[in-house]
Amino acid sequence: MLRLAILGCGRIGQVHARTIKSLSNAKAVAVADAFPETAEKLAGELGAQVRSISQIMASDDVDAVIIGTPTDTHFDLIKQAANAGKAIFCEKPVDMSAKRIEELVALVEAAELPFLTAFNRRFDPNFAAVEKQIRLGAIGHVELVQITSRDPSPPPVSYIKSSGGLFRDMTVHDFDMARFLLAEEPVEVFAAGSALVDPEIGVAGDIDTAVITLKTASGKICQISNSRRATYGYDQRIEVHGSKGAIKAENQLENTVELATSAGYGRAPAQHFFLERYEAAYRNELVHFVTAVLEGTPPSPSIYDGLQAQRLADAAAKSLETGLPQCVSE
Amino acid sequence: MLRLAILGCGRIGQVHARTIKSLSNAKAVAVADAFPETAEKLAGELGAQVRSISQIMASDDVDAVIIGTPTDTHFDLIKQAANAGKAIFCEKPVDMSAKRIEELVALVEAAELPFLTAFNRRFDPNFAAVEKQIRLGAIGHVELVQITSRDPSPPPVSYIKSSGGLFRDMTVHDFDMARFLLAEEPVEVFAAGSALVDPEIGVAGDIDTAVITLKTASGKICQISNSRRATYGYDQRIEVHGSKGAIKAENQLENTVELATSAGYGRAPAQHFFLERYEAAYRNELVHFVTAVLEGTPPSPSIYDGLQAQRLADAAAKSLETGLPQCVSE
Amino acid sequence: MLRLAILGCGRIGQVHARTIKSLSNAKAVAVADAFPETAEKLAGELGAQVRSISQIMASDDVDAVIIGTPTDTHFDLIKQAANAGKAIFCEKPVDMSAKRIEELVALVEAAELPFLTAFNRRFDPNFAAVEKQIRLGAIGHVELVQITSRDPSPPPVSYIKSSGGLFRDMTVHDFDMARFLLAEEPVEVFAAGSALVDPEIGVAGDIDTAVITLKTASGKICQISNSRRATYGYDQRIEVHGSKGAIKAENQLENTVELATSAGYGRAPAQHFFLERYEAAYRNELVHFVTAVLEGTPPSPSIYDGLQAQRLADAAAKSLETGLPQCVSE
Amino acid sequence: MLRLAILGCGRIGQVHARTIKSLSNAKAVAVADAFPETAEKLAGELGAQVRSISQIMASDDVDAVIIGTPTDTHFDLIKQAANAGKAIFCEKPVDMSAKRIEELVALVEAAELPFLTAFNRRFDPNFAAVEKQIRLGAIGHVELVQITSRDPSPPPVSYIKSSGGLFRDMTVHDFDMARFLLAEEPVEVFAAGSALVDPEIGVAGDIDTAVITLKTASGKICQISNSRRATYGYDQRIEVHGSKGAIKAENQLENTVELATSAGYGRAPAQHFFLERYEAAYRNELVHFVTAVLEGTPPSPSIYDGLQAQRLADAAAKSLETGLPQCVSE
Repeated sequence: MLRLAILGCGRIGQVHARTIKSLSNAKAVAVADAFPETAEKLAGELGAQVRSISQIMASDDVDAVIIGTPTDTHFDLIKQAANAGKAIFCEKPVDMSAKRIEELVALVEAAELPFLTAFNRRFDPNFAAVEKQIRLGAIGHVELVQITSRDPSPPPVSYIKSSGGLFRDMTVHDFDMARFLLAEEPVEVFAAGSALVDPEIGVAGDIDTAVITLKTASGKICQISNSRRATYGYDQRIEVHGSKGAIKAENQLENTVELATSAGYGRAPAQHFFLERYEAAYRNELVHFVTAVLEGTPPSPSIYDGLQAQRLADAAAKSLETGLPQCVSE
Repeated sequence: MLRLAILGCGRIGQVHARTIKSLSNAKAVAVADAFPETAEKLAGELGAQVRSISQIMASDDVDAVIIGTPTDTHFDLIKQAANAGKAIFCEKPVDMSAKRIEELVALVEAAELPFLTAFNRRFDPNFAAVEKQIRLGAIGHVELVQITSRDPSPPPVSYIKSSGGLFRDMTVHDFDMARFLLAEEPVEVFAAGSALVDPEIGVAGDIDTAVITLKTASGKICQISNSRRATYGYDQRIEVHGSKGAIKAENQLENTVELATSAGYGRAPAQHFFLERYEAAYRNELVHFVTAVLEGTPPSPSIYDGLQAQRLADAAAKSLETGLPQCVSE
Repeated sequence: MLRLAILGCGRIGQVHARTIKSLSNAKAVAVADAFPETAEKLAGELGAQVRSISQIMASDDVDAVIIGTPTDTHFDLIKQAANAGKAIFCEKPVDMSAKRIEELVALVEAAELPFLTAFNRRFDPNFAAVEKQIRLGAIGHVELVQITSRDPSPPPVSYIKSSGGLFRDMTVHDFDMARFLLAEEPVEVFAAGSALVDPEIGVAGDIDTAVITLKTASGKICQISNSRRATYGYDQRIEVHGSKGAIKAENQLENTVELATSAGYGRAPAQHFFLERYEAAYRNELVHFVTAVLEGTPPSPSIYDGLQAQRLADAAAKSLETGLPQCVSE
Repeated sequence: MLRLAILGCGRIGQVHARTIKSLSNAKAVAVADAFPETAEKLAGELGAQVRSISQIMASDDVDAVIIGTPTDTHFDLIKQAANAGKAIFCEKPVDMSAKRIEELVALVEAAELPFLTAFNRRFDPNFAAVEKQIRLGAIGHVELVQITSRDPSPPPVSYIKSSGGLFRDMTVHDFDMARFLLAEEPVEVFAAGSALVDPEIGVAGDIDTAVITLKTASGKICQISNSRRATYGYDQRIEVHGSKGAIKAENQLENTVELATSAGYGRAPAQHFFLERYEAAYRNELVHFVTAVLEGTPPSPSIYDGLQAQRLADAAAKSLETGLPQCVSE
């Protein structure tokens, strides 16, 4: 039985709480949130206690923490949890600064603590099946990866301003997916981007439409296609081309219905809401973390994976700024 | 808040229990099962009490019962619950005898009690979307209905012997779906069947492969195609042809992955397990029941729908026996 | 080089003429038609001569005849051609009377003449691939066959009146397809039908919506679903379920384009025009005939196949009339 | 009636000859080829004369020439044809040197001659339907274009050596498609490439796997994904994302058959052979040319389109060489 504390009782904390409730080998012992009422409510549903962060870190009955607080609090919370010897499940991004993540990597690795960077998409049953087939050799050697990742609609410009920019906020998931599928580090990044969806995003200094090219030392190439808008749902697809074939994961549609009329054949749009689209992924990643910690195996993706995704995002941002391809620092 | 008692704590009772746990407007107060340990286990998970059937019927804190016990107990349990004034959620089939169901219809209707016959497939999001589109006029007047319903693999012959036969055990779902989609009573039934999957099923006096033709008074026609085996998963499809178009619901595959090799394009099989395939349907039907009872609107499908499906099954069985089309008695 | 005469220079004769022009091992030597201008025009395009029927039958430079004249002329033309020792390619149906076809079967078999009943759908690349996969064992033993066959729109009522009825005019193709896929003779036929598309068709004594159930001696079952209307194109699909799997052929859409909007995903309708939908089939059947005659192997489907399809149509018509299943006479 | 001369009687010349034979408003008057026998054979099939190039240019009965000879002869043939006042249908690429094409553009535009650069893919019914839908506003403003273009297998290394490299030989089609779909000139090109399919291609100084990013002045972005190998057929897909939706054209599979077994659902591979895949496109482009010349409207794509595609190929080659994005000269 893994005893967990949930730090941050917002939307994502609640998703994890629901999963914990359904597991027989984990329970939520404590929760914390900046808003006492939010914490009380979730505690009530879980039969858990509301505690302060410092109380949680000092609690003997807490084995692991789930960090679902705002990004700018991650650094301190990870340091405290690492010092307290807790296993750590941390929402992405680990931090906006690769430098600071490097410091955390050193700390976590020295303490030999289980750490999961919650890149949930690796746990999506479709994407996981693609990666497994690749690993089993179904398409031979990987040569080209194509990642399409488009949000249904742009966030408010106020959010954009504090988001760290498209690459660090949104594409960071795709950078991790690229590394997952390429199974080799990208060494070069070239990014192109525009503000086509909402001119206000451009005014705020960000872009909403982008493509990124990644290249590895052995010559594998990955293309990412991003937009902050997709009228037909949350567009989340991957496609990998290899020496023996190609494999892809298509969008999950709202249902399996097809209507045929004189206008042709029509199907439902792709699922719109990320919590619905990635419902199984969120569950699977937490199950993986609980199992790994209980069994003493390292959870994956690691904090190092969190660092590398951030480095790719930094390189993409610099490429966009300079107009030139960038090497990825290590 | 609807206060429920679960009669029968087997597989289907546990499915409903899980749904109840996640609802904010319903709770399980009591459970009963022929096996005390099974009852105790589920009661523990739900925070409910184990009670005897007669205790449940006499309990003031029980508003409604979920009947998930073996079919041959339904008749008595429904009578007791009706006499006790409980709302009733009853697994299909209501009873193996149309005559006895007629008696229950009279009782339930006289008592003006909410009663849901748990034909879960009406609540499948795909099938429900098809029916809604038809109702909204998307395909004009319904003319032809095609229902494909095939189990992944046959049950043991021991089960077959006490099942009431293919039409009453398996096709009864399709008869209800036909009525749901035709929105008109079938008046004639013709059935053809063979034992092709397992000769032992033929020896036991049943069939495992069948097609049924239903015709309504206005001339609408429905075809049903059944098999006790489908190597590619649980094959559950419907297709409706109308004056302005056609609409269908395809199988739910295990994932959205497609592999392309020199052999062509391959996708995953259809979901195999009925509890996975109809997970959303089981949840939606219970939510519908709880909402209907709380709001005082009649749940649907009704006990009369349970009766009509059984009458169609009886007519199909007689058609197979005689080799002739049969009128449906009302 | 096979030297052909085309009897009947209407739409279907022109289709075959175009194929002949593109073949290196066949040429059209002569054509005949009730309308001299139609004959002259096609002769000009082919570099062939216009001859009378009797001249063609007496021509030493004609090895084979393509009979594409109205159905009521087939009987005499086949007799003449058989007496003249010509190989025969005959459009379906061979004749409206099974009795008369029996007479022709005897004649053709006695003369040991190559004879092809032009059930073009057997030569459709999709359907042919399905049959080939079945023959190679891809789905194990055939158990259930589903044939969906719907015209884009009904013919004029004037045509209906002289058509022999839906089963002999339209379903006859599906009866042949059923025999092709079942690889076993149906022994029982049950038909249900309605006039739902056009009440005038009902007034004319015919139906426009029908389903037929066929059963073979070993217990295989086939369902056919017909309509004289399909708003979304020419609906031509088959599906076969067997002990090891299932196989189907889907409609050919007008193109491969998919449009995604907030309304969902849309694709083009199915090809509407039968000459476009079965373009490859028409070509392949003639190539097969030419090759078979030149190589001295029997063409298939044979005149006996033409007879059996007609017997099934007769049995279906009688089933509809009597409301009872019918045995198929042999 | 347009009177044509075919220069070059190889594979592509024969394709065009077949189309001409089936047209009622065009005929082939003369053919020429470096190999007399090849010319004689095609002339025989067409009922045309074998003439020398200079005879053809001087022929009063030749309105237009189809140039299907090796690329290094195009320059001279176009100059001769332009001076002789013939309409010109020229296979891609117009020439390997953008400079030389500029000279031809001046000549052709000064002479006001009809000129078609035979980028056949614009005439593919699927791609043409995509472009038409975009033009009609189906997806709003174009933002992102994705072109996937992979050959079934690499050509011999001997061919690679004289091909001008992947970008000029293969991607040139995709550059034209990008311009067709973007409806705006790309101003920047970034290319990345590797030799992953065949190391000998790398030894020969070329690549076989590449991605290209194009950006227009208004910020639209296009990604191209190329490989010299695709085990599952000739992979030719496009996808365009816009402000109101997205549209794509999928591969044409060999047939519409789907096999379902315990391994899942399988479909046929994509059509492998380019002449089969683009059969309709080859026909449609010639029909367009003939119609345009006869009606006095300018054929499209023009010689300028041929020039711009070559400029993009040159820029891509320079980007690969330098590792830096390149502006497109105009």
